[in-house]
Amino acid sequence: MSSDDPLPLALSGERFTAHYRIRADNTPAARARAHEICLEQTVEFPDALIPNAAIRQQIVGTPDRPVAAGDGAWDVAIHYPIEAAGGELTQFLNVLFGNVALQPGVRLMDIDLPDPLVVRLTGPRFGIAGLRRLLQVPERPLLCTALKPMGLSSRALAQLAYRLALGGIDLIKDDHGLADQPFSPFHDRVPRCAQAVARANRETGRRCLYLPNVTAPAPVVRARAHTAREAGAGGLLICPGLTGFDTLRALSADANLGLPILSHPAFVGGLALSPDTGLAPGMLYGRLNRLAGADAAIFPHLGGRFAFSTTDCRDIAAGCADAMAGLAPIFPVPAGGMTLARVRELRDFYGRDCMLLIGGDLHALEPGEDLVQRCRRFVALAAG
Amino acid sequence: MSSDDPLPLALSGERFTAHYRIRADNTPAARARAHEICLEQTVEFPDALIPNAAIRQQIVGTPDRPVAAGDGAWDVAIHYPIEAAGGELTQFLNVLFGNVALQPGVRLMDIDLPDPLVVRLTGPRFGIAGLRRLLQVPERPLLCTALKPMGLSSRALAQLAYRLALGGIDLIKDDHGLADQPFSPFHDRVPRCAQAVARANRETGRRCLYLPNVTAPAPVVRARAHTAREAGAGGLLICPGLTGFDTLRALSADANLGLPILSHPAFVGGLALSPDTGLAPGMLYGRLNRLAGADAAIFPHLGGRFAFSTTDCRDIAAGCADAMAGLAPIFPVPAGGMTLARVRELRDFYGRDCMLLIGGDLHALEPGEDLVQRCRRFVALAAG
Repeated sequence: MSSDDPLPLALSGERFTAHYRIRADNTPAARARAHEICLEQTVEFPDALIPNAAIRQQIVGTPDRPVAAGDGAWDVAIHYPIEAAGGELTQFLNVLFGNVALQPGVRLMDIDLPDPLVVRLTGPRFGIAGLRRLLQVPERPLLCTALKPMGLSSRALAQLAYRLALGGIDLIKDDHGLADQPFSPFHDRVPRCAQAVARANRETGRRCLYLPNVTAPAPVVRARAHTAREAGAGGLLICPGLTGFDTLRALSADANLGLPILSHPAFVGGLALSPDTGLAPGMLYGRLNRLAGADAAIFPHLGGRFAFSTTDCRDIAAGCADAMAGLAPIFPVPAGGMTLARVRELRDFYGRDCMLLIGGDLHALEPGEDLVQRCRRFVALAAG
Repeated sequence: MSSDDPLPLALSGERFTAHYRIRADNTPAARARAHEICLEQTVEFPDALIPNAAIRQQIVGTPDRPVAAGDGAWDVAIHYPIEAAGGELTQFLNVLFGNVALQPGVRLMDIDLPDPLVVRLTGPRFGIAGLRRLLQVPERPLLCTALKPMGLSSRALAQLAYRLALGGIDLIKDDHGLADQPFSPFHDRVPRCAQAVARANRETGRRCLYLPNVTAPAPVVRARAHTAREAGAGGLLICPGLTGFDTLRALSADANLGLPILSHPAFVGGLALSPDTGLAPGMLYGRLNRLAGADAAIFPHLGGRFAFSTTDCRDIAAGCADAMAGLAPIFPVPAGGMTLARVRELRDFYGRDCMLLIGGDLHALEPGEDLVQRCRRFVALAAG
């Protein structure tokens, strides 16, 4: 390694930008921290040892001046050469947050991309407009529920799917805990549930979609997704925290599949919990799912069994749907113990372009009410 | 869904155990919280709505009595039926920590498995003994370094690999930021570096291994790993936080590949940072990598650029190497800004069965010293 070894390729000069919130005692410390991040996320080498000027000038991230954000926090934008990401989502995420994920006092707040195609990302295949067209539901919030609980037979789950579809639910997903267990194996459950929903659709004239869970071992995800499509599934559910975000991207980009995808935050969601580390909720649940090609992103709405604040939820909704380098907006899916009693509040909070996911509470029947009737009440509340 | 729908299959009764640390104000609250986790991680359904007794008795997790751990923390063990994991690592992780990852005040500390085969995991292919045999280094700590910085040409990286191997390094990995960028594309870099290390091995008579980074988009990881093996790579580097842990498992289980695997904590490492959420370091870095089949696990040693404490580092070492359901022990790889000056301290802390990873500091040459000589000093310090 000699100092006269130039960069073998001239870089484009195009950059993408990561917005971090860092902790520092004062302006010089914030600047020093920003410089460390520029090195850590690219060359991972002490500045003095960088072997040539071309690498220092073209590869290492370049920071804007940190801006005080109060309480010892500073916001800093760092610009990275698009070539550092090598056109791969895995390495793009690695540049944005690979090593600094391990450091307290650095949080990835947001990103800017000149064009997602510079990192070879095409984003959501359907998004809000595409899903509305598919379902022929032009106006009101979409309604989603989950087949559960784990332990029911495929036959029982299919009966349940039939009644939920009959009641007017738009999207019926597998609970994300339904995988390939002996009580409802994937290859048995998926055709049964798809057929049950198709039967209900013939009766109602509606276009309810069944979304099986394809969160699975790496070697079989693609095959399960294609099996699901062939069996009549109308979409897919996946947990990118368990499979990796690129598995979601690959499903979304698969033109022979062509199914809308709902993303579930299992396992990885904890990266948004601590205010000083990890990823901001809008980045993790909104931006990242959208970049990877999800058409709707589930997250815990405030006041449920989980932890998010009003600000977090607004940020997630923005991350799903605001202007973002030409990527289609996607549905935010507030969830986590939501109830019929909260539908109006959810609609007021998110507006009509959201997907409402109610699980258990659809089964908490009132006296004289059956499941189909309760679903119809959910539809009426969402439309009202 | 009717209450007379029995479980379609009789379950084995075998269980695996998750050890959580939870926050609660008092014993009844801790018990209630434990019961909620039992539901959340399995049926994800309110207790009162569980449709039949068989599901309540056989599917829902069963908690031990919570044990006070001081400062409002409680330790609780929860036992889950092995069938809930469906024999898949993705769903196994989902049962252990899928939804509760989103809840503050729940941390996954450790797990017990009756036998990893109950969830179809075979664990590390090489482990400590296998890697020592491969390298013919029976006693001292193994020595590892990274090819960097990003931006060097494949030719320059190969020259570097040659000199590092000549100097006596045991394992030379790609920096985890080397992916498939235009300055050193994977298909160009890997054969060059593998050949350079082979040339050095012919000269030294040693068995230095080159480990290319196969952290890559989901559809190409397997092909890159096989390309690497055919090009003469002696092992693989992967970041399961970016690819998903099952991608690591699939590489480890691939008998046609048969290469040792080094796991890097990029992106996912943040799940261990906050004391009240996420996974304990020993669980995330030790147990989980070992279950997934890594032969060595990189983590930030205390006092480097990262955040871990003495206790964290001891827990990681234990998670890598203590008795665990018959799985081979693996190498802990303390890293993150380590230097030659700290080799003795690292050896004292971890004992001889560790892998020492020094990156930048190997290039911080002293007057009159060249890279080969500095590597030899590293070897002497580790052996001394």
